[in-house]
Amino acid sequence: MDIREALYTTRAMRRVKPDPIPQDVQKRILDAAIRAPSGGNTQGWRFLFVDSPEIKAKLGPLYRDGLGTVFGSIYKDRHDAAQADPEAEESKQFMKMYKSAMWLADNFESYPLLLFAFCQGDPTGASLFPGVWSAMLAARAEGVGTAMTSVMLFHQKEMFEILGVPQDEGWSFGCTITFGYPTGRWGVAPRTPAHEVAFRNQWGEDIGFEIPEPLWPDGK
Amino acid sequence: MDIREALYTTRAMRRVKPDPIPQDVQKRILDAAIRAPSGGNTQGWRFLFVDSPEIKAKLGPLYRDGLGTVFGSIYKDRHDAAQADPEAEESKQFMKMYKSAMWLADNFESYPLLLFAFCQGDPTGASLFPGVWSAMLAARAEGVGTAMTSVMLFHQKEMFEILGVPQDEGWSFGCTITFGYPTGRWGVAPRTPAHEVAFRNQWGEDIGFEIPEPLWPDGK
Repeated sequence: MDIREALYTTRAMRRVKPDPIPQDVQKRILDAAIRAPSGGNTQGWRFLFVDSPEIKAKLGPLYRDGLGTVFGSIYKDRHDAAQADPEAEESKQFMKMYKSAMWLADNFESYPLLLFAFCQGDPTGASLFPGVWSAMLAARAEGVGTAMTSVMLFHQKEMFEILGVPQDEGWSFGCTITFGYPTGRWGVAPRTPAHEVAFRNQWGEDIGFEIPEPLWPDGK
Repeated sequence: MDIREALYTTRAMRRVKPDPIPQDVQKRILDAAIRAPSGGNTQGWRFLFVDSPEIKAKLGPLYRDGLGTVFGSIYKDRHDAAQADPEAEESKQFMKMYKSAMWLADNFESYPLLLFAFCQGDPTGASLFPGVWSAMLAARAEGVGTAMTSVMLFHQKEMFEILGVPQDEGWSFGCTITFGYPTGRWGVAPRTPAHEVAFRNQWGEDIGFEIPEPLWPDGK
């Protein structure tokens, strides 16, 4: 698969089938992840794959509780606004994301594979999330859908106990990635055009060009 | 370019030529970046390109001072160890990275393009570094080398002033990316094999396979 197709179409694919991810596919995903940059090449990362039904059954209820917290706090205003004015374009986009996120939570135990990513000595995430994103892009190339979620942050202590993560070695939880063969179609996610979130030389200064439409697949 | 080639060969390319990066290449890099995942699709990111000699001249001395701090603190033990036993394999790798990092600092003003990435409401970096890494992968596909560095964290306040970043809107600095056409060759960076940094179901448990050599280009 072409790099640009992967970069443009690796969007959150939360609705997936329970079919297992073959081991050779898992290998290619993991081996791609560790080629990503790591500050000072310290590689202070650990990747924990979970496919045990027992472990997933312990994590699922915590995940659902955490997601309730997310929508009752961080996203409460957006959720309230969407319910007050359901016809607004922003409301529709929010509710689509909300339903998709709820699907993930409700079906947590049915994902064939989960990845929990941890890092050490990396306060900004600069040396973990490139690797995580490489895993997601490598999965895309295999036809495997992924979604990244930080919801387990709300139950980090219990999660560390369930997964056996040492509490005294300075490991931080980065995120969970869900894997599965998607039921829907790949596509380019909606985004604010690039020139509206970019500047040149000074904050607020025009970047010097406009990109009103995605440059893939039709643009140059 | 194939996605796997990009994932495996986008290593830090610090030694580059001063030739400018054409605007259409900059467009493709930036437009790829904003397709990356963003929690709740909030897109709390800003990408500031710097190509002004005056701005680079103000930032360069701060960068060199910051790098001195890095090697005098975080990496001091590794630096001392490398000087004490220069023939050890670990020492050689460290000194290679050290010299390359020093080259970047010494030549900071000569990079044709720098990117400063910022985020809002994203404490873990989960919604910024995928986009940053996409920019680096998109650059790779264009033959443009990149390197990611967090060194400006040591002079964040001065950097915010130089770049005009608002101090009261909750923006965090993520990293700087250098861009340039490389003088050296692309290759796969050395890494601890994937199975040594991955577990299955429980921390410390075997992942269930071994990947002694990179799976690209020769492996499956």
